[in-house]
Amino acid sequence: MNRRPGTRTLALKKAPAVRSYAAVVGKKEGEGPLKHGFDSISEDSYFGEESWEKAESHMLRQCFSLACDKADLAPSSLGCVFAGDLLNQCVSSSFALRDSGIPYLGLYGACSTMAESLGLAALALEGGFAETVCAMTGSHFCSAERQYRFPLEYGGQRTPSSQWTVTGAGAVILGSGGSRLHVTHFTPGCIVDAGITDPSAMGAAMAPAALDTLRAHFADTGRGPGDYDAIFTGDLGALGHDLLESLFAREGVALGPRYMDCGVLIYDLAAQKVNAGGSGCGCSASVLCGHILPGMERGVWKRVLFAATGALMSPTSAMQGESIPGICHALAIERED
Amino acid sequence: MNRRPGTRTLALKKAPAVRSYAAVVGKKEGEGPLKHGFDSISEDSYFGEESWEKAESHMLRQCFSLACDKADLAPSSLGCVFAGDLLNQCVSSSFALRDSGIPYLGLYGACSTMAESLGLAALALEGGFAETVCAMTGSHFCSAERQYRFPLEYGGQRTPSSQWTVTGAGAVILGSGGSRLHVTHFTPGCIVDAGITDPSAMGAAMAPAALDTLRAHFADTGRGPGDYDAIFTGDLGALGHDLLESLFAREGVALGPRYMDCGVLIYDLAAQKVNAGGSGCGCSASVLCGHILPGMERGVWKRVLFAATGALMSPTSAMQGESIPGICHALAIERED
Repeated sequence: MNRRPGTRTLALKKAPAVRSYAAVVGKKEGEGPLKHGFDSISEDSYFGEESWEKAESHMLRQCFSLACDKADLAPSSLGCVFAGDLLNQCVSSSFALRDSGIPYLGLYGACSTMAESLGLAALALEGGFAETVCAMTGSHFCSAERQYRFPLEYGGQRTPSSQWTVTGAGAVILGSGGSRLHVTHFTPGCIVDAGITDPSAMGAAMAPAALDTLRAHFADTGRGPGDYDAIFTGDLGALGHDLLESLFAREGVALGPRYMDCGVLIYDLAAQKVNAGGSGCGCSASVLCGHILPGMERGVWKRVLFAATGALMSPTSAMQGESIPGICHALAIERED
Repeated sequence: MNRRPGTRTLALKKAPAVRSYAAVVGKKEGEGPLKHGFDSISEDSYFGEESWEKAESHMLRQCFSLACDKADLAPSSLGCVFAGDLLNQCVSSSFALRDSGIPYLGLYGACSTMAESLGLAALALEGGFAETVCAMTGSHFCSAERQYRFPLEYGGQRTPSSQWTVTGAGAVILGSGGSRLHVTHFTPGCIVDAGITDPSAMGAAMAPAALDTLRAHFADTGRGPGDYDAIFTGDLGALGHDLLESLFAREGVALGPRYMDCGVLIYDLAAQKVNAGGSGCGCSASVLCGHILPGMERGVWKRVLFAATGALMSPTSAMQGESIPGICHALAIERED
């Protein structure tokens, strides 16, 4: 038991190791600033399938296979997979893994799923419930757009605060050793609802949740932003990034240039016309696996705080006038020398 | 580490205790054979709210409060909540808990969610990650019907194999003691797809997954059906129940009368015109909390195997011609004398 009373951060004594990871993205993401880090870039938005939903599933399956290959692991040897996605009933994950024969624990954490799945995977290892566990998620621009917004053919206008759903997937395999990268802390998120009702302002809806979780993480661990070489939020976008910075500044905490957002990093915002940046489960997942973890391996950062954010709303809840609850799960990932 | 190589059942040495549980259901369920076990029966299908989605959320919130009350616990003292539901983006769970201030881990396991959430809650305790954890899920006939099938006003015909989505919720709070009921084993499910494509034949789609998980449970533990006083599947309904019995019979295993299905138990099938029986996340959840656990406390059963089943499809996947993958997570719950 490593959780102090009144805290919510779990310090992981065994510090599960990152055995392998993989990132698969679409064409647009493959033209962005992080293009050199992804394992695979598909020129075809259908990934060879006949629908965007099947394409999303295909992308996840490919990403899962790549992660297993890179860990030199037979998929069937995995203890379990934690996975989820944005599609109704999370079908891209379940169809991606339906032939795997691996215990499957489906999650719904909206765009926070990479951190939620990785946190639960880390706990499964910490508890000794498995030897190797996979955490995975992804999203697809076309399937998300038609499910959450408008038919693609409609060509709807986009507000300046809107974000572009990343076509991308990330998978991480954790094990008990065999890597210098370790998950050392998991701070699960509480739902925070600041009353935002505009589904085109997800950054504003999720920033208060990121504030809540990061504040808890700092308080629980006795660490501050300066103890991390880099802090990444999931997909707050440019507006949400600045908002979180302001919210912390009000409390006298300077996040500084070490603070970055995956949704800002993955695209050249102006040139790629993505307004406030990237979003979707696949945003933080592909940036984690295609940029952050490779960067840590290369020694760019030694200690990273990864805080994926999610908006727990649906088109129906928005149409019924509900505000948008946010959540943020955070993980400390550290490199041993 | 209590998982033997090549097995998937986790034997829980600490055997987390069932601190409390609550079941809230709708009018129809409150007129069925299990009516005396539920904590609350709503005569109003709207639960005082203005939409069925908000009603579902209200029901979950009520159920969560009841479970906390019965455990004499302040909700804020819970280590975390594992919850999910059938609505797109699982909004009934997230809106039910948005003001709770409790770490929230969202799940999507379709109708298997009661077992998935309870299994993960048990692991959180077994691993020492929390002192008390809540597992919760529910479903609502009206919100499910219009999301998955037809507008209610349409009055669509129902096939004989179709099932009736239960309006009901169940919440279980696990802790380290304070009860004679303990979760002793968790067998997580693998996805099993038998190629069924008829969304009105969920029992047939899910029975092979139940076979797979129960078979694994028996092999891993060295136990057979005879070692349990009762075995409950989640919501296979009358057809799925008989199918699972036949599938086991083919392998020379007689489940016998100890084998029951929550979807068969919750309604008087003929009199209540529910065709093959109940379904939905709320089916196994409300039967667990309104019938099985109270029965165990009264001494009706001492050792129970609870195996909730889920169909991991969506209306979109069905329309795209995909078959229906099933999953089943199982838990052994035992009473100490």
